[in-house]
Amino acid sequence: MSSNPIEYLKTNRDTLLTDLNNFLSIPSVSTDSSFKKQMYEAARFVQEHLERIGFQKAEIEETDGHPLVYGEYNCPNADAPTVLFYGHYDVQPVDPIDEWTTDPFTPTIRDGRLYARGSSDDKGQVFMHLAVFEAFMKTDGAIPVNVKVCIEGEEEIGSEHLYATLQEKKEQFQADFVVISDSGMVGLNQPTILYGLKGFTGIEIDVHGPSHDLHSGLYGGAVRNPAMALAHILAGLKDEQEIVTVDGFYNNVQEIDSFERTLMSHVEQEDYQKTCGVSETVSEKGYTALEHTMARPTLEINGMYSGYQGEGTKTIIPSIATAKITCRLVPGQDPEDIQNRLEKHILAQAPSGVTVNVKKEKLSAKAYKVEPNHPLIKKAADSYTKAFGKETVYMRMGGSIPVVEWLDDLYGIPIVLLGFGTPEDRLHSPNESFPLDSFDKGMETLVHYWNSFK
Amino acid sequence: MSSNPIEYLKTNRDTLLTDLNNFLSIPSVSTDSSFKKQMYEAARFVQEHLERIGFQKAEIEETDGHPLVYGEYNCPNADAPTVLFYGHYDVQPVDPIDEWTTDPFTPTIRDGRLYARGSSDDKGQVFMHLAVFEAFMKTDGAIPVNVKVCIEGEEEIGSEHLYATLQEKKEQFQADFVVISDSGMVGLNQPTILYGLKGFTGIEIDVHGPSHDLHSGLYGGAVRNPAMALAHILAGLKDEQEIVTVDGFYNNVQEIDSFERTLMSHVEQEDYQKTCGVSETVSEKGYTALEHTMARPTLEINGMYSGYQGEGTKTIIPSIATAKITCRLVPGQDPEDIQNRLEKHILAQAPSGVTVNVKKEKLSAKAYKVEPNHPLIKKAADSYTKAFGKETVYMRMGGSIPVVEWLDDLYGIPIVLLGFGTPEDRLHSPNESFPLDSFDKGMETLVHYWNSFK
Repeated sequence: MSSNPIEYLKTNRDTLLTDLNNFLSIPSVSTDSSFKKQMYEAARFVQEHLERIGFQKAEIEETDGHPLVYGEYNCPNADAPTVLFYGHYDVQPVDPIDEWTTDPFTPTIRDGRLYARGSSDDKGQVFMHLAVFEAFMKTDGAIPVNVKVCIEGEEEIGSEHLYATLQEKKEQFQADFVVISDSGMVGLNQPTILYGLKGFTGIEIDVHGPSHDLHSGLYGGAVRNPAMALAHILAGLKDEQEIVTVDGFYNNVQEIDSFERTLMSHVEQEDYQKTCGVSETVSEKGYTALEHTMARPTLEINGMYSGYQGEGTKTIIPSIATAKITCRLVPGQDPEDIQNRLEKHILAQAPSGVTVNVKKEKLSAKAYKVEPNHPLIKKAADSYTKAFGKETVYMRMGGSIPVVEWLDDLYGIPIVLLGFGTPEDRLHSPNESFPLDSFDKGMETLVHYWNSFK
Repeated sequence: MSSNPIEYLKTNRDTLLTDLNNFLSIPSVSTDSSFKKQMYEAARFVQEHLERIGFQKAEIEETDGHPLVYGEYNCPNADAPTVLFYGHYDVQPVDPIDEWTTDPFTPTIRDGRLYARGSSDDKGQVFMHLAVFEAFMKTDGAIPVNVKVCIEGEEEIGSEHLYATLQEKKEQFQADFVVISDSGMVGLNQPTILYGLKGFTGIEIDVHGPSHDLHSGLYGGAVRNPAMALAHILAGLKDEQEIVTVDGFYNNVQEIDSFERTLMSHVEQEDYQKTCGVSETVSEKGYTALEHTMARPTLEINGMYSGYQGEGTKTIIPSIATAKITCRLVPGQDPEDIQNRLEKHILAQAPSGVTVNVKKEKLSAKAYKVEPNHPLIKKAADSYTKAFGKETVYMRMGGSIPVVEWLDDLYGIPIVLLGFGTPEDRLHSPNESFPLDSFDKGMETLVHYWNSFK
């Protein structure tokens, strides 16, 4: 009998790994309807685990899509806060299957890494929480906080039904703060606090010229070329110093203060030139590439097309030209406001002789940020450091996690992102894996974290 | 027995039409190798016609592709000039066959038009010349000029082997001037002298950014987006007044003089807004749309692409962006010089962080122009007017005919474009047709033209 949770996790490591392997062996691919049965199987795995270790409530809740696992643990300590633990049991498809060294649903350890689809995103990290809850129950007989568990099955397909469920059952999911482990650290064994995520919004620009492709000889010189009109519009959105020229784009943008700049300066800057294969990095004037990606708003063309794209030449004036644009937003920016400003700017720049339409993408999200010196964050950083034996670094991320924005929007409570993945995990790609070091030290981090609420 | 060629053409109209129908019934589709036999059949039709009416030479010459018909007629008048008559017996494919009202190779008359593939482009117009030569031989016993005939079988596939043949047998094809009937008039029964064609040249711009598509959240702000870089480059090629901003682009451009402007002003301007489905026409500052398309150089984007082009959004920074551009050139401009200037301009504009390549298209052509008041052109205009009973208008065309540039390049002799097609002929499309009015009055025009050399 182990005397404390950390000892329990060490003593029972093999059993826990076997348990995790059973979880990872279930092909819970949410996008493929032929795995409907396996989705229930994976949900049941979580539900049964919670039930077995003594959660007062452990249910599979139906949605209009894949089911969601909901659990409740009520701590004997009347003053204990309530945490909402969010994660997902669904995984990405495995194609191209040929590129996997070993079967994606036959977990295999190689060179200190556990290879399996979902090992990092997110079944592996969800299981670490389940194991830590188990360790507390089996040793202390209690978890130091009240826990609400929400493990969904549709994260990889856009969490289609989660927002409706959260809205509908707002009180059920009400908590004092949220913990999510569905992200990563900046490097192996480098504990990392992710205290901010960007929001995003998107538009599509369609430029309609002639009603059909025209002979560039017979009509070149008589009509406006929509591809050229689009080029002028796009070039007018951003200058060569990577500053967005749309009026009011930077209104209310929360400036990166010197405290944050210091925090960020401890993050080892990725070797962008190597990772991205570019000749040099570029960033907004006055900011490093890291600061720009983490904490400054960006505007990117994601795609564009017009006319002929095959081999050789086809001498036409295209009838239409299109571009897709997304912006990543920081705190202070409102997605709808940004869409409106883009639209206004673009329509004002539309040249004569073509018709310009701006289509606003529906899926948008505000940025999320918690104060890096918030007590809940401080506790997390200390727990990381204790477990990994290394100073925790603080970062914000250019990416977006819609559920974070929804939870923030619905509850306005702090969200603690306790990620243990590493940049080498190959999420969504063949040969996804998770370091066993992260598995061990991550669970230890969680034990320290919950203990800090005692 | 008819007393003169015009009477002969009228008396024998039915027989000639039957002959033409036999020619049009041969499916001489040059792009489809399964019609190889029919290509010879069509060539033989021309060769046998020349032989039958008394040409001293009438041969089928092999090339590395489809054969070419060569004929020679030596006029008794020792002072008569020598004309090289060029045309082509091959036709475009007929797809989509379902859209033809009647079979493309079963010539059918409806509403004063002869429907068949090749009726306008170019078998119908070639046959008119054959019929007129016949009419002269059968009535006057002679054609008023020496004639060299060159009817090729590869025009619709780029005249791949013609240039080599012309170069190789330069003396054989040597003449005082060239006559081609492979173009059109601005409208039905509106005689039109086409006295200039544009040249062309093309480039492709490739902008290489990151070595692979990047996550726009994680890397947006650290690397240069190649689509945005391309937009800046393209926008820098032309201003909103449709003036090309490439240094030296307009060097040596032959200005449209007031005489030409007066000539052009008699061309009824096409209703571009209706034909092209645009809200308004645009043209180079200082020029009408007609002048711009006919006689000013143009630069058009024919196609461009980058990144994601499907439904919805894919939040990437694309790895590459590409655009295809062609310029239509006027007399004074050299295609190679223009390519070099474009390349220089573009590379100078390339922003940091991306690699820009300019690929020069091989197929280029200089513009062609004959003086509109050249005696050979004046004779043609007068002949048109006599036959159609209407003043001839003068125009230049924004399109290019490579063979014209080659003949000009090799021989430097005047090229008279005696076209009889109309804008409604639907060349290259289903239901190609040719007006019987053009057939009758066109042949009459040719009789007047040859008579003017007596």
